[in-house]
Amino acid sequence: MDFYEKSLEMHKEWQGKLDTVPKMKVDSKEALSIAYTPGVAQPCLEIAKNPEDAYTYTIKSNTIAVISDGSAVLGLGNIGALAAQPVMEGKCVLFKEFGDVNAFPIVLDTQDTEEIISTIENIAPAFGGINLEDISAPRCFEIEQRLKESLKIPVFHDDQHGTAVVVLSGIINALRLTGKKKEDCRIVVNGAGAAGIAVSRFLLEYGFPYLILCDSKGIVSKDNPNLTPVKMQMCEVTNPENLHGSLADAMVGADIFIGVSAPGVVTEDMVRSMNKDPIIFAMSNPTPEIMPDLAKKAGAAVVATGRSDFPNQVNNVIAFPGIFKGALEGRAEQITEQMKIAASHAIADLISDDKLNESYIMPEPFDPRVKDAVTAAVKAAISPKP
Amino acid sequence: MDFYEKSLEMHKEWQGKLDTVPKMKVDSKEALSIAYTPGVAQPCLEIAKNPEDAYTYTIKSNTIAVISDGSAVLGLGNIGALAAQPVMEGKCVLFKEFGDVNAFPIVLDTQDTEEIISTIENIAPAFGGINLEDISAPRCFEIEQRLKESLKIPVFHDDQHGTAVVVLSGIINALRLTGKKKEDCRIVVNGAGAAGIAVSRFLLEYGFPYLILCDSKGIVSKDNPNLTPVKMQMCEVTNPENLHGSLADAMVGADIFIGVSAPGVVTEDMVRSMNKDPIIFAMSNPTPEIMPDLAKKAGAAVVATGRSDFPNQVNNVIAFPGIFKGALEGRAEQITEQMKIAASHAIADLISDDKLNESYIMPEPFDPRVKDAVTAAVKAAISPKP
Repeated sequence: MDFYEKSLEMHKEWQGKLDTVPKMKVDSKEALSIAYTPGVAQPCLEIAKNPEDAYTYTIKSNTIAVISDGSAVLGLGNIGALAAQPVMEGKCVLFKEFGDVNAFPIVLDTQDTEEIISTIENIAPAFGGINLEDISAPRCFEIEQRLKESLKIPVFHDDQHGTAVVVLSGIINALRLTGKKKEDCRIVVNGAGAAGIAVSRFLLEYGFPYLILCDSKGIVSKDNPNLTPVKMQMCEVTNPENLHGSLADAMVGADIFIGVSAPGVVTEDMVRSMNKDPIIFAMSNPTPEIMPDLAKKAGAAVVATGRSDFPNQVNNVIAFPGIFKGALEGRAEQITEQMKIAASHAIADLISDDKLNESYIMPEPFDPRVKDAVTAAVKAAISPKP
Repeated sequence: MDFYEKSLEMHKEWQGKLDTVPKMKVDSKEALSIAYTPGVAQPCLEIAKNPEDAYTYTIKSNTIAVISDGSAVLGLGNIGALAAQPVMEGKCVLFKEFGDVNAFPIVLDTQDTEEIISTIENIAPAFGGINLEDISAPRCFEIEQRLKESLKIPVFHDDQHGTAVVVLSGIINALRLTGKKKEDCRIVVNGAGAAGIAVSRFLLEYGFPYLILCDSKGIVSKDNPNLTPVKMQMCEVTNPENLHGSLADAMVGADIFIGVSAPGVVTEDMVRSMNKDPIIFAMSNPTPEIMPDLAKKAGAAVVATGRSDFPNQVNNVIAFPGIFKGALEGRAEQITEQMKIAASHAIADLISDDKLNESYIMPEPFDPRVKDAVTAAVKAAISPKP
């Protein structure tokens, strides 16, 4: 039986992957009077006087919403809200299991940007954070940006930033391994969807000076007449020599290739055309842009993929639970670039010099050190409130 | 230490009354592949093909939302969304403890009718039902009605219908006790908010032929120039003789008084003016419309209140958990009048003839028979789908 059949069978048995469980027994009149009326009036009145007290008396201190409109689910595409629900429940399971964060899934019966924003704003009061999930580009950019401006709790689109944090952690260790310096590296990112844009922005923010973004038509360049507004923005900060051409053209002389694109689009020849000791992150799932053995044969110094059956799996689960746990514990109002960079370093630092090798640049999802390391680093990187 | 202090202390210790708990461990790569990617794609695809499969593969079959805008919370009034959260969490605790229904609280940062409706519609897909809570009249009527029309899951405003179901169950037993027949009874309902309107409508639906509704100004009559639209509608079905005057005028000759109004508004003289063996439900909280000892002294045959320290407590917790459990188990698309009447009878029938007396017309909240009796009766009363 394969994972798909087994998963279907288990989902049928579970009938939903989450229970909502009271923290207390209500088995006497007294218990009822304390957890509910009349006693519950007291925490209500305290919160009415001082809204910050919600962090003391309600689930807000450790509960987030995992929200999707079902428009870009896994590799399945736009399957709609209800069909996305098993993924959202799964994500909530991971938040709890890997981060001890309570998470509740909410799928939205709308794919209209304005409606999504106003709905999330309306349900936000008692949540401590919002994890956006599987919302397609370019709407995901505006939705996240607008919610960050209007809400005073962390809003985080994991497909963008979780991926970016884990990629950076792997790149940091790939540099350690190869002795390359970020100042000298040329990066090619293939794929200009949510993940590709976010990874590119984050690597630039981290200080990589040279990055070329490609989409399915080749190098994204400002002379292209049909650019979306987001790609247009990206031209301001990428492709410094204003190159034109295909992915193959972009890769000549590059140090790092990052693919969040499509199966098999990278050839051995393209790897051979890169700078010495090239670093390949081929994250198309389940089939990478180039298979690790072929990339190695063509000279790659390090290869990472999205798959758990190859070394160096880029798996967001090593980032998002600890990022939210740290943000919640530190009562952050936003998840900033500094907090994300701190998470990347914390993940990378878990691999000591004597353990680091080309098959081990990234901790495993089940490494028990990950959660506390990420949580502590993110919490320490929160800016003090003005 | 009183309940208020104790409740505050416990709420501080709990830091929220609910946990979101996975039904499975995710402690291996295989477990991850089944609960999450890649296996989770399979239930997603099944639901995409057949949306009804959400009841098989997600939490929809046994999870409801408890939703409030914080506009009419307990006796505290319009304290807003966030301050209402401890009550909503408490309600979710009761759903689980008394009905084995998973419930999640959502408080809304809007009190605009249209925004509330569209927000709830947008978040509804993966919920099996919606329990509206502590939303003020008259908005609660339109919100509930519109959602019932647009959603294919049960929508239930407990302040209205839960109260109505429990009141009817008590009235049924008060009739058994006093030998009165519903056809002969004159009822006065004092209080024309959400609960008063809902109780009146439900008793009329059940078959009581004569009911007078009073508000703080006295008898609601169609000659009054300043009636709200809802009270205007109520004039079509109440006050058959088109009486005018005060609450005291209404009570002359009445058999049943039902108060969801204000402390102390009923006098002993008013009770003395009623028909023989009057039935008094004085549910203003914490201070009833008339104290039970005074009502008894003035000749009341049965007295019920909202308080747990007097006999015959009218407590919604004996109704709403079983009503939702029955509706969910029977996959009802709505909670109909028939289902609510079945719940009232199931509750009343739990008290056998030999146990029934003036201090015991209503089962206790902790009576272990309640949940199963209500669940079974509600489920059996679901109309078959066309």
